[in-house]
Formats: sequence, C-alpha cells, structure tokens
Amino acid sequence: MGDVHARARVGIVGAGQLARMAQQAAIPLEIDLHVLAEAGDDSAAKVVPATSVGDYRSLEDLRTFAKTCDVLTFDHELPDPAHLQTLAEEGFCLRPGPAAKRFAQDKAYQRAELGAHGFPVPANATVTTAAEVAAFAADHGWPVVLKAPRGGYDGRGVFFVADEIEAAEAVARGPMVAEAHVELVRELAVLVARRPGGEAQAWPVVETVQVAGILRELVVPAPLDANRMEEARALGLRVAESIGVVGVMAVELFDTGSELLVNELACRPHNSGHWTIEGAATSQFANHLRAVLDWPLGVTTQLAEAVVTVNVLGRADGFDPAVGLPAALAVPGVGVHLYGKAARPGRKLGHVTALGDDPQETRARARKAAGALGEGIADG
Amino acid sequence: MGDVHARARVGIVGAGQLARMAQQAAIPLEIDLHVLAEAGDDSAAKVVPATSVGDYRSLEDLRTFAKTCDVLTFDHELPDPAHLQTLAEEGFCLRPGPAAKRFAQDKAYQRAELGAHGFPVPANATVTTAAEVAAFAADHGWPVVLKAPRGGYDGRGVFFVADEIEAAEAVARGPMVAEAHVELVRELAVLVARRPGGEAQAWPVVETVQVAGILRELVVPAPLDANRMEEARALGLRVAESIGVVGVMAVELFDTGSELLVNELACRPHNSGHWTIEGAATSQFANHLRAVLDWPLGVTTQLAEAVVTVNVLGRADGFDPAVGLPAALAVPGVGVHLYGKAARPGRKLGHVTALGDDPQETRARARKAAGALGEGIADG
Repeated sequence: MGDVHARARVGIVGAGQLARMAQQAAIPLEIDLHVLAEAGDDSAAKVVPATSVGDYRSLEDLRTFAKTCDVLTFDHELPDPAHLQTLAEEGFCLRPGPAAKRFAQDKAYQRAELGAHGFPVPANATVTTAAEVAAFAADHGWPVVLKAPRGGYDGRGVFFVADEIEAAEAVARGPMVAEAHVELVRELAVLVARRPGGEAQAWPVVETVQVAGILRELVVPAPLDANRMEEARALGLRVAESIGVVGVMAVELFDTGSELLVNELACRPHNSGHWTIEGAATSQFANHLRAVLDWPLGVTTQLAEAVVTVNVLGRADGFDPAVGLPAALAVPGVGVHLYGKAARPGRKLGHVTALGDDPQETRARARKAAGALGEGIADG
Repeated sequence: MGDVHARARVGIVGAGQLARMAQQAAIPLEIDLHVLAEAGDDSAAKVVPATSVGDYRSLEDLRTFAKTCDVLTFDHELPDPAHLQTLAEEGFCLRPGPAAKRFAQDKAYQRAELGAHGFPVPANATVTTAAEVAAFAADHGWPVVLKAPRGGYDGRGVFFVADEIEAAEAVARGPMVAEAHVELVRELAVLVARRPGGEAQAWPVVETVQVAGILRELVVPAPLDANRMEEARALGLRVAESIGVVGVMAVELFDTGSELLVNELACRPHNSGHWTIEGAATSQFANHLRAVLDWPLGVTTQLAEAVVTVNVLGRADGFDPAVGLPAALAVPGVGVHLYGKAARPGRKLGHVTALGDDPQETRARARKAAGALGEGIADG
C-alpha cells in the first residue's frame, strides 16, 4: 500500500459532483475509479461502474471500501477524523492524510494551528456560552461570526449574531468558533495541487462571489494587482506546505483591501476550481488524481484572458436544468456541466464556464447560459 | 422515437475507444450513455455503467439494444447495412441513418455515388478478375490500389498490386474496388458535425500522417495556404450535406498538390479528430452527441497555434503504455489518453495531444510523451 502503480484503483469517499467530474479526468489516464456512494443514484454513482454503496460514517464501511482501493481520497469533509486516523494506522493509503484533512474538518483546530504558525486569520476564540461571545464582542465588536467546528458548508453551520440573545441561540447548538466580522473588498480562492514529496502547483487566483455563504460565481483571474496576486498565490502554497496536504486543496481568503486573511480550507477539489476544466491547461480533477498517485502534475496555465464560472442552484419552483440544456448550449463558448442530481431548492445542480477576452462579456455569456438552466444570479 | 429530450439515452453500437471518449463528453451533459460491447472488458465497457454485451452482427442483439435507447449511434462501420435499414424501418432512431452510414460501409457504393454527384475521387472501377484489373491498369497504370468494399480499416482490406499476378491473389478474396494510385503531397482530414436539420460545423483542416495505412500523427492546422484550406473545408461540408450525415463524420482527402480528392469517409467520430479534445473549443465527441440529439453544436475554434496528436500503437515486445504514464505526464502541456486495452502489436492503445505555439516544438513534445508510452514513430 502506498506504492501506487499504473492502473491504480483510486477510491473516493463520497459520490457527489466532485467524484463525478473526477471520473472525466480518470478515464483518459486509465485510472480505475471507485466511489463509496450513499445511494446507487448519487451523482457519481451514475457514471462510475465501480460504485459501492455504504455509509461514510461507519468505520467498517470505510474499511471495507478501502480494501478495494490502492489509495483513498475524498469527495467531502464529513468522514469522522478518528476513523481516518484508524485507517491510516491500519496501513491504508489516505491522500490527503488524516493530519492534513483535519484542517478542513475541524475549524477550531484549523484556527488555532494556522494562528500558531503565523498565518493571517481573523481574530477568533472558541466559545461555549453567550457570555463568552459577549466578551469576544467587547474586544472585536458586533456582529460576531459563530461557526460550528465541524460539518458546516455552503453557509450551513455559520451564524452572524448581533447581540448576546442571538449568541445564546447559536451556542445552544454546541461549542462554536467565534470570529471577528471582517469588512471585505472581495473573497478569493487559491487552488493548490501538491504531491507527497512536496512538489506543488497553484492555479491563477480566483475571485469567488458568495451569496448567503454559497458560492455563486467565479471570476478568473481575480481583479488584483500583480503584487496582491502573487501574495495570495504564495499564501496558498505556504498553507498547503504547512499542513502537508496531498492532492488538491482550496485556500479561501478574505481580501480586506489592506491584507489577506485565511478564511476556510478545503482538502479536496473545490467549487472554486471548477473553472479549470475548460479554463486551465490541467483541471483540478486531473491534478488531484495525479497528486494522490504521486505522478507529475500538469501545468496550471489559464487558457483564455477571462474565465467566468456560474453555479446553477435549484430553484424554489423545482425547475429541472436539463430541460434548459439545448438553450444553454446555444450560447457560444460555454462549457455546460450538469451533475445528475434531482432538482431541490438551493441545491448545486450544475455549473457553466465561459471563456473569452473580456471579463464583462464573458460573465454575460456565462450568466446567459446559467439562466437557460434556471439560475437567477443575474436577476438577484 | 426521434423526439429526443434531456437526459436522453444514447446507445453506441461498439465499445471501443471512441465510445470510451464519448463517455467523457456525455457526463457533463447528463447524457445517459449505453454501449453495446462485444465483451465486458471492452475499452468503453470499463467506464460506462450501462453496458450490454451482445453481437453487433446479430439483428436481434441490435434490436434488443436499440430498445433501451432513445437514439442509436456507432463506434465503428461494421454493422450490417441491411440490419440498420431494418431497424430504421421499424422506427428506431439511427443517427447517422442507414443511407448516410452506407457511404462509410460500402466503398463501391461510395465511389459510384460521390462520382455521380461530381465530387473529385480517384479514377475507380469495381473489379472481380485479374483481367479487369489489368484493363484498369492499362488506362491508369500500375500499381493499382484494390480495396475490399466492406470491413477494411487501418490499412486492412487494402492491397497495392504491381501486376496481374498480384492482382489475381487479391481478387481471389472477392470483388474489389480498383483505384488509380495517386501521387500525394499529403493526406488531409476534414471533420464535420451535422444536425438533422442541416446545421453543420467543420473543424480546422488536419494533416494526417499515415504509415502503412495506419494513422500515426495529426498536425493541426494542416500546412496549407488559405485558399486550399478553405477548399478542403468547403469540400468536407459539401460531402456531409450531400450524404445527409447526422453526427460527426471525417472526410479524408488526398492533396496531390494540384487538387484535392476524396479518399475515405467515416460516419462517426474519427481518429483524425482526437486533437479536438484538448485542442478545440468543442471536442468531436461532444459535438457528435449534440448533433445526434439535435442540440446546438459547439464552436470548433482551435485553442492553440499548433496542435499535434501522436497515436500510441502496441509494440512488438508487448510493452504496456500504462507503465510509462508518469514519464509521459512529465512532458509539459500534453494531454495523455489511454484506452484501457490490452497491449497487442499494432493495436491503437492511446494517443497524446500537445498544444503549443510552434509546430516543430509541439510535435517534439507530443513525440516525447508518446515515446514514454512506448510509441516509436520518432525513430521510425
């Protein structure tokens, strides 16, 4: 185990859209992808013949699945860190390993460790009572951002509290990481691929447009001057090196105008990297597979002056994006991706990526194609 | 049938590398690909969950498979034209239809029809005896090219005969299409995608480098002046329109220096279009699926100044290209494709595509990556 050869069996825990898009990258490299799905009709299960159905919360199911694979990697951050630790100790090859993965799984640990290593992060503290939140606010002001240490994503598990009464409601759910609310110019993401020996590549820095904590749009490159761009890229690479990740990771940043702060980490391919499928010489999915197999990474050059990705979220009226597919394909120069998921309000059902010469024109085309699929960001 | 909706089930007869690469294009469009494989470990069967095993030579197997699909298309030219005609008459949606497909399946028919419609083709005649070959040679000179009307590909079924004795040997196999041997400057291919209503797109014209009748290398764009380039492109589009193809077709041309002649037709995605996966805004596989579903076609723009594809053929010593995969991936800016096939001498096992600014430098990188996979064209 750990010595990974050609025709490797790469197991992905989880069978969402990330695993589904990984299959597109696995096919030409003759990588035998296996997925551990929650159900036989999960997004990736529909396109990966070697699908196992099991519970990622069960150590036994994880172990049974791991035995069918040469290397184990992840579609999400949800497996129990203790289970991953056990599997690593049993000799299974986990990439990223449990120590790196924990940075994306446990926000309290991540904040403490990054801060201790001198990385710029928002002021933070672990809190269990409303009084502790109020004490934190006395130093850093209201509102305070409270984050559940585990399990949150797409805005879930994140609470903006304006006073002690709202704080009491939030901490009733359990201990939280309190963070100072940061005034932003924009949010950024740096995507990094890293091999076990440390060879790493960062893609161009992305501006991420979030609405209610959910990523809606990517603009590549982010509208930064060359110095800030390089600062962000270098910060992403330093974080990847510091936590020892193997595979692709996303380092999400706050740009306050005067400084960059590390916001969130994801130790897997990430929504902020979807633009790389059409827009970069090597996609995040190809480089993730190459990294976890310890194969040479592909170049991360951007292929067009402007790249814009727009997510397609499920509408309240249950509109099925597949119905709009021909209309979306009629928009020139746009890559369309549907995830094979049933339409539910707010659910990520697909995305589109437009390439062009001008950011505004490119964004307009991306929004037009996304609009055909039912996405309403242009109106929102 | 024929009215094709979102989440369409597209059935491909055959499960070789073309069907395998079609799966990469099907996934993001939420197209439910089905393949009719000869064996469960066929190239595409390894990556398509909806694989049926059956015999493409059997009308009953074809019909059983067709019943599971909304539209039927093809990985190869080998199904019996009479079977396809029967299925079309039974109401199954075949794209391309039997009438267009016959142009790629029956060389005698193709030569007669193209000639009758005024398309430039080499001088030709159907022959059944050595004396008829000799009479043809009296007008057109030796050698004569004899082609089996059906089933030939990759140089199989093609005989260069220098005299009546060799001709006798060849015609002992059955009736042949005799063709004048044409002195070439180069061979070209024009790839066209066409929808049922006639909307069509051609990709940039490709130079194909053949060795012993097997395609080994593609250079895109072909080194032609603008007039000849446009002449080739227009000829490809006229042929597609004339035969009424639906889907992607390849029109292979001889460039004699003074004129262009139609050599072969393939009514399916084709080796000469593999460069489009990395090198064009829309791949031949994506546009084939879009065309057979009557969805808007994607733009066919070339994404780099120079694109070179090199095929990887099985070596005499049985070298497994997958062993060379990490070395091939270490060559920058090259897309690597392995087909999941067992190594056998002369078998097409994969290809690589390099993008660059300069044709020579780009070809050198492509050959280096192909060389890592065991391909010896650079030495040959």
